[in-house]
Amino acid sequence: MYKQLKEACYEANMQLPKLDLVVYTFGNVSEVDREKGVFAIKPSGVPYEELKVEDIVIVDFDAKVVDGKMRPSSDTKTHAFLYKNWESIGGICHTHSTYAVAWAQAIMDIPNFGTTHADHLTADIPCAPPMADHLIEGDYEYNTGQQILDCFDGKNLSPNEVEMVLVGSHGPFAWGKDAAKAVYNSKVLEEIAKMAYLTLQINPHAAKLKDALVKKHYERKHGKNAYYGQGC
Amino acid sequence: MYKQLKEACYEANMQLPKLDLVVYTFGNVSEVDREKGVFAIKPSGVPYEELKVEDIVIVDFDAKVVDGKMRPSSDTKTHAFLYKNWESIGGICHTHSTYAVAWAQAIMDIPNFGTTHADHLTADIPCAPPMADHLIEGDYEYNTGQQILDCFDGKNLSPNEVEMVLVGSHGPFAWGKDAAKAVYNSKVLEEIAKMAYLTLQINPHAAKLKDALVKKHYERKHGKNAYYGQGC
Amino acid sequence: MYKQLKEACYEANMQLPKLDLVVYTFGNVSEVDREKGVFAIKPSGVPYEELKVEDIVIVDFDAKVVDGKMRPSSDTKTHAFLYKNWESIGGICHTHSTYAVAWAQAIMDIPNFGTTHADHLTADIPCAPPMADHLIEGDYEYNTGQQILDCFDGKNLSPNEVEMVLVGSHGPFAWGKDAAKAVYNSKVLEEIAKMAYLTLQINPHAAKLKDALVKKHYERKHGKNAYYGQGC
Amino acid sequence: MYKQLKEACYEANMQLPKLDLVVYTFGNVSEVDREKGVFAIKPSGVPYEELKVEDIVIVDFDAKVVDGKMRPSSDTKTHAFLYKNWESIGGICHTHSTYAVAWAQAIMDIPNFGTTHADHLTADIPCAPPMADHLIEGDYEYNTGQQILDCFDGKNLSPNEVEMVLVGSHGPFAWGKDAAKAVYNSKVLEEIAKMAYLTLQINPHAAKLKDALVKKHYERKHGKNAYYGQGC
Repeated sequence: MYKQLKEACYEANMQLPKLDLVVYTFGNVSEVDREKGVFAIKPSGVPYEELKVEDIVIVDFDAKVVDGKMRPSSDTKTHAFLYKNWESIGGICHTHSTYAVAWAQAIMDIPNFGTTHADHLTADIPCAPPMADHLIEGDYEYNTGQQILDCFDGKNLSPNEVEMVLVGSHGPFAWGKDAAKAVYNSKVLEEIAKMAYLTLQINPHAAKLKDALVKKHYERKHGKNAYYGQGC
Repeated sequence: MYKQLKEACYEANMQLPKLDLVVYTFGNVSEVDREKGVFAIKPSGVPYEELKVEDIVIVDFDAKVVDGKMRPSSDTKTHAFLYKNWESIGGICHTHSTYAVAWAQAIMDIPNFGTTHADHLTADIPCAPPMADHLIEGDYEYNTGQQILDCFDGKNLSPNEVEMVLVGSHGPFAWGKDAAKAVYNSKVLEEIAKMAYLTLQINPHAAKLKDALVKKHYERKHGKNAYYGQGC
Repeated sequence: MYKQLKEACYEANMQLPKLDLVVYTFGNVSEVDREKGVFAIKPSGVPYEELKVEDIVIVDFDAKVVDGKMRPSSDTKTHAFLYKNWESIGGICHTHSTYAVAWAQAIMDIPNFGTTHADHLTADIPCAPPMADHLIEGDYEYNTGQQILDCFDGKNLSPNEVEMVLVGSHGPFAWGKDAAKAVYNSKVLEEIAKMAYLTLQINPHAAKLKDALVKKHYERKHGKNAYYGQGC
Repeated sequence: MYKQLKEACYEANMQLPKLDLVVYTFGNVSEVDREKGVFAIKPSGVPYEELKVEDIVIVDFDAKVVDGKMRPSSDTKTHAFLYKNWESIGGICHTHSTYAVAWAQAIMDIPNFGTTHADHLTADIPCAPPMADHLIEGDYEYNTGQQILDCFDGKNLSPNEVEMVLVGSHGPFAWGKDAAKAVYNSKVLEEIAKMAYLTLQINPHAAKLKDALVKKHYERKHGKNAYYGQGC
């Protein structure tokens, strides 16, 4: 039971060190099964080189453990919150990848400076501000989910179009139709974060991408007449 | 048929991840067969680890598919435009390599700061400005080729001497006598872009390379009395 | 005799090149045996690719060689000083890792900018100032230990809570319950140093992490009600 | 004949790509045989993955080929000049490593900011200014050797104490008792160049290493009472 779900979650987690997105245990990936109302997530504090498929933990949307012997990721409540509130997403990935963290620590949105960015989203990558103290001292991981949701609501963003966020002073979360796509988006975010950093070092007055290019690049990959890829 | 052309194109494409020039599918390489009036190009959106020789697509200079089952790269019309207009080039490579993209996003030419640059070209590496909106909204990839051509005409550059360009807000294109040389030029461009970035961080008033050194280094590799390499 | 101690020390040393924390012989790790009153340390100037378990040297807390044919690390007296004065630590690691060295050369504490930092310590990472000339000209490596101790005393820091330091103009030392943990802390320090560097490049006015987040992240990993990891 | 010399030269050259000091053919290493009055050097323009021991070329101190079928490195006259004028050196390495080139392009000495630097040399790493035009247009590679020599004479530096230099607008040369040591010094230079770059980014007013530390670190490795390493 949950074998396929655990395997998909395991495989996605194992991509993180290969893609240079984590050192040690600084990350976690989950994948949801909407029919069963549960998701699979990495156990807390287990190094990737020791991680096994059977270590993956199954929890419900209230972050209660349903299956598995280990304690789930300390960020489990954030994943649960997002799955509960955003019914269209199928996988979530959290890392402390270097350049994305730097922007999060600077508490700044990543400006849309070029087509690499626009190939994936039209908006700037939002940085949610740090929470109020009473929320940090309360149910912190649950409130981190709320903080992300509030950021998207405040900026009128859709999680189907913007599949990544920076949590201010902390680091990136990304998501997608499944865990593999969430990991893909985490890698893309790290690349975009590095490119934007370098762009501003070269030209502190760099202009944002013009609207026509934003639209063109996003539409050719994601629009109704998209012509990127093999159409499957 | 087209077996050798597809193989050359495939091998050149497979160099991109090895040389750290791409993540995922962020790049494409093509090679031309001038006698047959066609070129081979990577299929759109296929990850390098899954790419096979038989997936390579053969198209003509109007970007019509001549052979192959897959959809060619979304940038195919740019390649077709350049092959049609620059009859001396034999391969083209497009990537989103990090430092070259940063300069493209800064919309700045890369100054010729040293002999590593002058070993390959005498001019600054040009950055073509972003297109007018109606060109973006029109036949975008064809117009990207036009934009590159106009940039070279406006600056009076020859594609035989300057084998690389930045497309503003987008990223680098490079070319050469064949696909392998186009990939080589893409890697050289990325190295030069990183060196120039660091140079300006260390010394914001760094002077460009003096003319005598520009000439000396270019001529010893590419001049009529060149003495670099094994003369073959 | 000392077989297990030497092996633990050897394994920890061999992690340094794998984690990209050293080139050539620019680092050394030691592990203590409190009952026997000795510690194991890397021999001086031996490249990692040639290092063998039997090369590891056993010395006492006065840095006298107790077992082994080779000369111990030139930094042995610093290790001995710290083991003698801080009875709770079990392993020490010294490297010249790039970003940590850059902060040490800038003679600046690394500000606590985010949760990656707070997951490991609440304070800024302290940078001990360079010693007075007569201390450098005296028993230099012993005095380096004293310099670290004075820095911690002056800032009222505990080596059990802050397991890393920068020695001004020189580089990082880290420690922990054993050699493996000391290496872990060295890698974490290098990551934090890089993130803090990038943060300041992106936003020179970046604010330090707010107190509530500092406390929350440190406590969830290290507090009495810690819920990170598998509790073992 | 020359077998051992060619092998030592070959092995040293093959270290360059492994140490990330070159891409493609951007570098060359030589080793001298003082008794025979010749040195072995990499052939010009041959990629490292294709290089074989028998490709190594033997030339005399006037840069005349004595043995070997291939054309020697285009920088051969610079090597010959240095061997002729500096009788104590046994190997030379030239690369276009990224951070060293950036300082060379900035035409700035690398300040001695820390003990990593002082472990290897007490002086700033000198950057020789670009040559006068008539020297560039004349016997360029020979004059590059002269330029390095003049830089050392002008600054009163000894090639036995300072085993590395930046040639302004060009890149680094390093040397040592043999080819392996010259490669070692090239790697050390690249590391020091990166650390110094980062130091200035973090603290543009960073002070140079105090004299007592410069002396202490250099002496403990290279002084008459050196206690670093195994004394062999």
